[in-house]
Amino acid sequence: MQSSIMSSLRAEAIDAPASQIIEIIKYADGKDDITPLWAGQGVLPTPDFICDAATRSLAAGETFYTYQRGISELREAIARYHERLYGRPFDPERFFVVGSGMQAIQMAVRMVAGPGDEIVLPTPAWPNLSAAVGIASAKAVEVPMQFRPEGWHLDLDALFGACTERTKAIFINSPSNPTGWVADEAELRAILAFAREKGIWIIADEIYTRFYYGEGRDTAPSFYEIMDEDDRILFVNSFSKNWAMTGWRVGWISAPPAMGDIIENLIQYSTSGVAVFMQRAAIAALEDGEAFVAKQIEQARVGRSKLLEAFEGNNQLRFAAPKGSFYFFFGLADEPDAWPLTKQLVDEAKVGLAPGFAFGQSGCAFMRLCFATTSEQMDRAVMRLNRWLSARDAMPERVLDLEQA
Amino acid sequence: MQSSIMSSLRAEAIDAPASQIIEIIKYADGKDDITPLWAGQGVLPTPDFICDAATRSLAAGETFYTYQRGISELREAIARYHERLYGRPFDPERFFVVGSGMQAIQMAVRMVAGPGDEIVLPTPAWPNLSAAVGIASAKAVEVPMQFRPEGWHLDLDALFGACTERTKAIFINSPSNPTGWVADEAELRAILAFAREKGIWIIADEIYTRFYYGEGRDTAPSFYEIMDEDDRILFVNSFSKNWAMTGWRVGWISAPPAMGDIIENLIQYSTSGVAVFMQRAAIAALEDGEAFVAKQIEQARVGRSKLLEAFEGNNQLRFAAPKGSFYFFFGLADEPDAWPLTKQLVDEAKVGLAPGFAFGQSGCAFMRLCFATTSEQMDRAVMRLNRWLSARDAMPERVLDLEQA
Repeated sequence: MQSSIMSSLRAEAIDAPASQIIEIIKYADGKDDITPLWAGQGVLPTPDFICDAATRSLAAGETFYTYQRGISELREAIARYHERLYGRPFDPERFFVVGSGMQAIQMAVRMVAGPGDEIVLPTPAWPNLSAAVGIASAKAVEVPMQFRPEGWHLDLDALFGACTERTKAIFINSPSNPTGWVADEAELRAILAFAREKGIWIIADEIYTRFYYGEGRDTAPSFYEIMDEDDRILFVNSFSKNWAMTGWRVGWISAPPAMGDIIENLIQYSTSGVAVFMQRAAIAALEDGEAFVAKQIEQARVGRSKLLEAFEGNNQLRFAAPKGSFYFFFGLADEPDAWPLTKQLVDEAKVGLAPGFAFGQSGCAFMRLCFATTSEQMDRAVMRLNRWLSARDAMPERVLDLEQA
Repeated sequence: MQSSIMSSLRAEAIDAPASQIIEIIKYADGKDDITPLWAGQGVLPTPDFICDAATRSLAAGETFYTYQRGISELREAIARYHERLYGRPFDPERFFVVGSGMQAIQMAVRMVAGPGDEIVLPTPAWPNLSAAVGIASAKAVEVPMQFRPEGWHLDLDALFGACTERTKAIFINSPSNPTGWVADEAELRAILAFAREKGIWIIADEIYTRFYYGEGRDTAPSFYEIMDEDDRILFVNSFSKNWAMTGWRVGWISAPPAMGDIIENLIQYSTSGVAVFMQRAAIAALEDGEAFVAKQIEQARVGRSKLLEAFEGNNQLRFAAPKGSFYFFFGLADEPDAWPLTKQLVDEAKVGLAPGFAFGQSGCAFMRLCFATTSEQMDRAVMRLNRWLSARDAMPERVLDLEQA
């Protein structure tokens, strides 16, 4: 009977891959005292001023059906937030509240691509993007980035060369999860010019834009700084990272306002909107959250510094200092496949990392460590990794081989 | 530039219909003193004991990523809830928490149907179902039910005759929104036998099962009472109606447990789970909510009685007494198109109803009134409708025609 169930389901549903980040978390289930840096979240719960806004809204009885695009107060608050970041006016009508950055991605993908279509993306990349493309019966075309010790590199000729008549969108995640790569303004301009010329959409994931470690500016370079209002760019974003709201599942899409009716309908027929009390919390995050965001950014800076201080010049490791986001993406110089290492690190070093192959073939030799966490947790992770690396260095290679046999 | 935006979007996205229920609500926007019975929700906010559970969870810092299938406490509570309703054990592994009954429908549709496929459904039916089918590039095949004063009737031969080799599922919503039709056990058995024979899925929407006005049993007849555990039935459900949680967007899918990994992955790549604090509220609803649900059911019974007392024997109206759900679906005997009436009722009677054509062609002559509301609001609605009907009756037909000219 089970086989008849499976044979009567859609291939896209059956073929949806398991998240390999989840897989390592399951592997570690029940194991004690792991320092868990595999997920893209810190140890702080959502701050009280955000939770309180939700609580007040609940107490006020805001528990009824609401606007599919989001309540106007939140859409205006999102517009003001962008105005503060980019120093120019934004139309609240371009913002649509959805049930997570993931839903934003899923909707963006489905609006532009279907069976036979392709979406081109530089990798390593967050795996949920290509999975969402697959579920939409389209094909994710990976353009492997080059690892260089001075920073991951995107070959624009390779990116453009991967675009065919079937290409409906280029997905650009800058700052990048997991590599920490950040597109500079010239790269963004080149990509936008190419997309305009070819009539291709850009799906822009700038979720980590506040986590930028370059000089001379506070946020990473953004398509918002070089685009026209009606350029074919769909921005996907989330409250998860900046405001420690990973568990809330609230995000937004930013799109040409002319798409309003279409996006409203797609929200209607997917989840029918986001709870008003969640939206009140999101408003509090945007309007009163700058001090908290600053603290989050500072914490990530500290975490990054600790890692660089600990491992710069260590010949056992391969990594590039991240220019943005809050991940340290590293491998062992002598180990092209990091998946067994990820499990060893759980068992031996008691550090939980995400395996790099989850982010595409080009990530195979790497592991992702989230450094958006407390100073104490970072110190513990660095100490444990160093101890494990020293033990590994001291161990004759043939003993290692024997043990693995 | 706008036209180039539209021409580069997927047809399913562009063609997603606007909700015509929303359309009448927008029509009434800014008009004073409307008695709003167009939506499927009452005037009571979510009860405190449910909101408090969310608030406590928020205060306890349950704001992190969580299990894609839902937390085990909630899945177990849903299983116990079904055990109480149907007097037999349920496996918690068959329940999956999702972000609304709508998301449950969307996922169920996508799991079984895609381009070239068909889903057969009796109509009038809640419009979001066929919209979800359309967005999945599949075709919703309507089987019009027959209006009879003694109750809407589903012709099973017509239902089965509409199924072809392209049919992947039959959608059965019993008790029905909007007609109040309830499938009896013999009908459910016939549908299940047919679906088994043909290898067709059933998508069962039994959201209104507690709102049942028949004799001899508390809940409407259910597929749960006649099925095997691994029958190909996908149940879609929601916390919205029973517990006055329409604005929360929490629902569940009930499916053969063998589908667990697939559904987990599809949740991962659509919204990535439901906030834990929402799930705590859902547990409170299930475990401590029976008195509230009983009150909701009693309120609907009272509303239904008021309508039947007021309008039974009124020759101006056409309707069948609803056997379940909480909608009064009625038309004017002399008016085959109820859409202009819906607007007139807003302007003249100050009563807000949903236009029947929103529920399919077979609903054109009808309007939907939600009677899950307070006694006071029902009295006001009945009074206003009666006054408007009397005025209409007194008005010579040609004057009406002149006014509409």
